[in-house]
Amino acid sequence: MTIDETAHIVHDSPMEITTETITTEEYLNLFVTEKFSMTDIAPAETRHVVMLVYPGMFALDMVGPLAVLQGLVNTKVHQLWKSADSINCTGLTIVPTGTFDNLPEKIEVLLIPGGSKGTLEAMRDPDIVAFVQTAATRAKYVTSVCTGSLLLGVAGLLEGKRATTHWSAMDVLPKFGATPVAARYVEDGNVMTAAGVSAGIDFALALATKMVGEPYARGLQLDIEYDPAPPFNAGSPAGAGAAIADGMARLYAPLMAEMSQVAMHVD
Amino acid sequence: MTIDETAHIVHDSPMEITTETITTEEYLNLFVTEKFSMTDIAPAETRHVVMLVYPGMFALDMVGPLAVLQGLVNTKVHQLWKSADSINCTGLTIVPTGTFDNLPEKIEVLLIPGGSKGTLEAMRDPDIVAFVQTAATRAKYVTSVCTGSLLLGVAGLLEGKRATTHWSAMDVLPKFGATPVAARYVEDGNVMTAAGVSAGIDFALALATKMVGEPYARGLQLDIEYDPAPPFNAGSPAGAGAAIADGMARLYAPLMAEMSQVAMHVD
Repeated sequence: MTIDETAHIVHDSPMEITTETITTEEYLNLFVTEKFSMTDIAPAETRHVVMLVYPGMFALDMVGPLAVLQGLVNTKVHQLWKSADSINCTGLTIVPTGTFDNLPEKIEVLLIPGGSKGTLEAMRDPDIVAFVQTAATRAKYVTSVCTGSLLLGVAGLLEGKRATTHWSAMDVLPKFGATPVAARYVEDGNVMTAAGVSAGIDFALALATKMVGEPYARGLQLDIEYDPAPPFNAGSPAGAGAAIADGMARLYAPLMAEMSQVAMHVD
Repeated sequence: MTIDETAHIVHDSPMEITTETITTEEYLNLFVTEKFSMTDIAPAETRHVVMLVYPGMFALDMVGPLAVLQGLVNTKVHQLWKSADSINCTGLTIVPTGTFDNLPEKIEVLLIPGGSKGTLEAMRDPDIVAFVQTAATRAKYVTSVCTGSLLLGVAGLLEGKRATTHWSAMDVLPKFGATPVAARYVEDGNVMTAAGVSAGIDFALALATKMVGEPYARGLQLDIEYDPAPPFNAGSPAGAGAAIADGMARLYAPLMAEMSQVAMHVD
């Protein structure tokens, strides 16, 4: 095998393609543990994952966790919005699976993605905030990615909780009574919040571990070949360096001021 | 600040929110280097990024690179399909921005996402293969994520090239005359191929570096807070362990056999 000098070598022993096959049940049996039986892994009753979708949300906030959670057996992922009309996200138009009226009675995971101006508008929209509140009462896990946590905040769900968000929005969290934690994801009670955008993938794998155990979560990680090798160590303010981090913080400052303003008007 | 013991601590000095602002031009000026002028960073002429979209594609293959490349100034990202109808991807319905007839004359990046059965069907579809061939002649960079490289293969674009794909599909590549390279992404001439699903993010940052330089790419990385911290080291066959990797390879064996069959019929 020729090794490309310019390529980022991650693993050097690719699988030989096997001609042997395996049934789905045999495959899932690999993930049975002392704590998680086949009934947990492949439940008879459909698990419902509900993702709020809205104009201007950042698509990867939702699609990262989707890539992980869609791999769970008998799990229906809903993307719900006010209407059945298509939604313009950042560079992507998506069609909701249903409207707020299609909220299942019993929800395994509620997930709120973030964004910038679209999220600010959502924070100011009483219908959306009411939907988040109602959905949260039905959900086993109440979760967010990126500035989606600020929507949880407006809905009153972060009061007294440790939580995280996009690095640029950390100072907004205390305005909702939350304690900001600089972490990839934070769990406090049944609330799990993830850091910015791409953190949704790490968070979803951690969540899957809670739902179906570590072996299955490892399988989900292998399936999306999540063996990250970013070309730079620039995913945090410290790693990116002061010039870029300060510049971006200043670029987002007006948005963060407006998001903080919304927090001031929460009951 | 309270530190959550259960959280995955990644960076411990979150930015304080600044009240100072910066204009977009001032911000972009941070990224000017000896090699990349403001004209390169914010070109007067719109850059066109064309992503093929198709039923059954895996959404994250496309949305990962989208999250990076949508941050480029004056860059239009197209998602093109045969018709303007919405498309069911894996757990997500998207609306194309246009049809194959809307292919720009000059393309900066052509990107082909992958998938499983949907990709197999696309490989067997002469209209899609012809579109990939035509688009490639107009593109500065011809790229793929995951099994999208097999579509490049069917289109005859990997002949004599080093390339990569999802780990489970590595043995299909030689059937298109390509030399498989176990890497996160591989560059050979103007062809860049990325490994499975999530590798599209790493690849897109590397591609952005070529397009607008390292400082800007670092800014894009910070914006999506791509500071990965997967809960497990299970993103490669070796990391996931033999039981899971063998199991998954067997699960995919019938699909890979069919994909190899398509390769046998390529002229």
